[in-house]
Amino acid sequence: MIARVFIKPKKGVLDPQGKAVHSALGKLGFNQVRDVRVGKYVEIRLDTGDRDAARSGVQKMCDTLLVNKVIEDFTFDIADD
Amino acid sequence: MIARVFIKPKKGVLDPQGKAVHSALGKLGFNQVRDVRVGKYVEIRLDTGDRDAARSGVQKMCDTLLVNKVIEDFTFDIADD
Repeated sequence: MIARVFIKPKKGVLDPQGKAVHSALGKLGFNQVRDVRVGKYVEIRLDTGDRDAARSGVQKMCDTLLVNKVIEDFTFDIADD
Repeated sequence: MIARVFIKPKKGVLDPQGKAVHSALGKLGFNQVRDVRVGKYVEIRLDTGDRDAARSGVQKMCDTLLVNKVIEDFTFDIADD
């Protein structure tokens, strides 16, 4: 199975990379952009066919290593290989 | 509308950050992990209600700024606010 984890800076946390991308998009003429947040995308390939086990494993990986919960929010989904 | 862009290193392109995460997960006891790829997640809030316009705009943003197509693959989706 494949887990896709999406991590982004929490609301209210400064995101200089997002601001830089927003500004660059504006200069390129993309004026309909209201806000940009830049975060991390982690794709984890798992050796298991058990979706529930995969889900709880990925939740633990996020809790212990992948996400800094003080400044980041995350979501993830699990898909078949 | 919100566009969510997922960018990851192409297959075959070295991903030292992914390797580091894979190794760290192994040391933490997550042994069912086969592979990890780390990329970028970009969330773009758009001032438009037109989904087709949003889709073509985001495609252009990826082509011109967000993605380095030599070494990165990307996908995106568009959702309502």
